[in-house]
Amino acid sequence: MSADNQQERLDLNWIAGFVDGEGCFHVAINKQPEMTLGWQVLPEFRVVQHQRDEQILHRIRSVFDCGQVVVNNGNRKEFRVRGLENLNKIVKFFQQHPLQTKKHKDFETFATIIEMMNVREHLTFEGLEKIARLTATMNTKVRPAYLESSETVRRTPDG
Amino acid sequence: MSADNQQERLDLNWIAGFVDGEGCFHVAINKQPEMTLGWQVLPEFRVVQHQRDEQILHRIRSVFDCGQVVVNNGNRKEFRVRGLENLNKIVKFFQQHPLQTKKHKDFETFATIIEMMNVREHLTFEGLEKIARLTATMNTKVRPAYLESSETVRRTPDG
Repeated sequence: MSADNQQERLDLNWIAGFVDGEGCFHVAINKQPEMTLGWQVLPEFRVVQHQRDEQILHRIRSVFDCGQVVVNNGNRKEFRVRGLENLNKIVKFFQQHPLQTKKHKDFETFATIIEMMNVREHLTFEGLEKIARLTATMNTKVRPAYLESSETVRRTPDG
Repeated sequence: MSADNQQERLDLNWIAGFVDGEGCFHVAINKQPEMTLGWQVLPEFRVVQHQRDEQILHRIRSVFDCGQVVVNNGNRKEFRVRGLENLNKIVKFFQQHPLQTKKHKDFETFATIIEMMNVREHLTFEGLEKIARLTATMNTKVRPAYLESSETVRRTPDG
């Protein structure tokens, strides 16, 4: 078994370990004026590597059988998965092959948001607000633009 | 299975995947005037994490049953293995659970150096020179002080 044999299928627990180190579960909430609520929820799973290890991203992609390998930034490439159907496969995978670092908390939040999107809660004000608050607890803990924006339509507690 | 259960033994392929992302095989060659050749070869295996994930380093340590968890820098901790007997265990592990990224090349060089040390080649001028040249191909490819130093005792090709 060697890294030069691109045909060989990666062990699934190896993938979990690698993602514990290198993976990222991210949910953006982007302004999208043409959508009903004016904001779009864009969840994404990413693994970023220096381009010298692009081959490992393709091998991971072939196990998940979804997503794509694209340029991340400069000499870095990323394996990226978007789209609700694909992300449900990703969520199922990491429920079966659990992350072991604190990243598992980001994953659980991510899985909650994907489940909310499955039942279309992100298309309601209440759901969007809840998702925004959940994303604020993830990753670098940057407050999402949605929560900071004066354009956010927000109901009063009794509204 | 969850990250909060520190008793649970980590899957061995998970460890290989995590080390592919986060591990480092490093060989320092330090000036040590009291040693016969004036230089000491110090191989080391490391996994560095933010202190919030210190528990995963202890869980890795308990699988290898050697090494220690110490402060790396600021709010980072490292699981570190030194000593020839311990490093032979590390080498054996990654021969049985191969790395999949380009890091496997660093590992193979590291394993070569450990094998040379097993037969005490690092205590000869020729062995030390060979190890220095091998380490120059590893990691960040910084030229080791040994190769740059005017204090290095170097034989001429026909010497």
